[in-house]
Amino acid sequence: MIQQQYPSQLLEKAVAEFSKLPGIGRKTALRLVLWMLRQEDSDVEQFSEAISKLKHEVKYCSVCHNISDADVCPICADHRRDKATVCVVENIQDVMAVENTQQFHGLYHVLGGVISPMDGIGPGDIEIDSLIRRVAEGEVKEVILALSPTMEGDTTNFYIYRKLAAFGVKVSVIARGVSVGNELEYTDEVTLGRSIMNRTLFEER
Amino acid sequence: MIQQQYPSQLLEKAVAEFSKLPGIGRKTALRLVLWMLRQEDSDVEQFSEAISKLKHEVKYCSVCHNISDADVCPICADHRRDKATVCVVENIQDVMAVENTQQFHGLYHVLGGVISPMDGIGPGDIEIDSLIRRVAEGEVKEVILALSPTMEGDTTNFYIYRKLAAFGVKVSVIARGVSVGNELEYTDEVTLGRSIMNRTLFEER
Repeated sequence: MIQQQYPSQLLEKAVAEFSKLPGIGRKTALRLVLWMLRQEDSDVEQFSEAISKLKHEVKYCSVCHNISDADVCPICADHRRDKATVCVVENIQDVMAVENTQQFHGLYHVLGGVISPMDGIGPGDIEIDSLIRRVAEGEVKEVILALSPTMEGDTTNFYIYRKLAAFGVKVSVIARGVSVGNELEYTDEVTLGRSIMNRTLFEER
Repeated sequence: MIQQQYPSQLLEKAVAEFSKLPGIGRKTALRLVLWMLRQEDSDVEQFSEAISKLKHEVKYCSVCHNISDADVCPICADHRRDKATVCVVENIQDVMAVENTQQFHGLYHVLGGVISPMDGIGPGDIEIDSLIRRVAEGEVKEVILALSPTMEGDTTNFYIYRKLAAFGVKVSVIARGVSVGNELEYTDEVTLGRSIMNRTLFEER
């Protein structure tokens, strides 16, 4: 495609900024920016303020490293939650995904990534040491590893498992198997094979 | 789906602002906001600044109503362009789309919309009067109507044609190489360029 000619430098700059966003191309960026231009001044102000405010004022929970407005996040501060169970996840979206299931009532630990030598991410670059320290305090009885079933996720699971071995804490990993609602024939061999190996007794529910 | 629980009000606010953008749902908005959080402070500042700067400082060309940094846009100010030919388009994207064809060397007139009784947009709500005034000044010899081939586009074409009848100016309409029902800005350059070259005299039909 020919390089787009912009009639305004301000427009070009705004489009360039929008098209830096992941998954947003120049055409979509232009559409978004022109849409912005048609909004009220106050709406645009509110938009750009919400972003810079988030960036400047956001905190991370000192216990679980989840995003938070306070020093301790609402989940860690909630006395009704089971402090003996900690679910280890990769990022903030994963916390929200598990929360949405309404099946988990313990606390979280957000690693902020997984071990990935290919991307130069070692155990020291993510929040593993702070997890070990949390467990060392003695209150945690079970650590549930809820990382993505990828090579990096498996590596991280294994590393954490080895690190926690000394503390006598129960370490579990979320079940891997056929997704609910999926057709068996479209499930990949590895998943299907593993779900047969890890079969559970059938019980009436 | 269950209403998403956000661990931070600041995050929720930023996601809400992003999901106001056309075509951006809450899931994409969250992904964009969390991506923003991982960027440098200065990058985020640059992003929100580009938007509010555009909104506050942008001007519209006093001649053709195209977006512009100066009082007169670079196209209208360019002495090499043919001031006798004016291409009438609906919006700024359409100017860029026609410019990209490199087939047109005249000036533009941006209506800022089309006549659409269904949306309550009458001839007085778009830049038709200023087009008539431009033509009345005498320098314009041909007006090319390059609106989208929709009902509203056709209505607007006809209205402008009737208004210009008194001035003895040539009125042409871009060839219907553009597929009916499509938006002009998404038409490929070759089709759009050819439809400008093969423009025909506007006649009452």
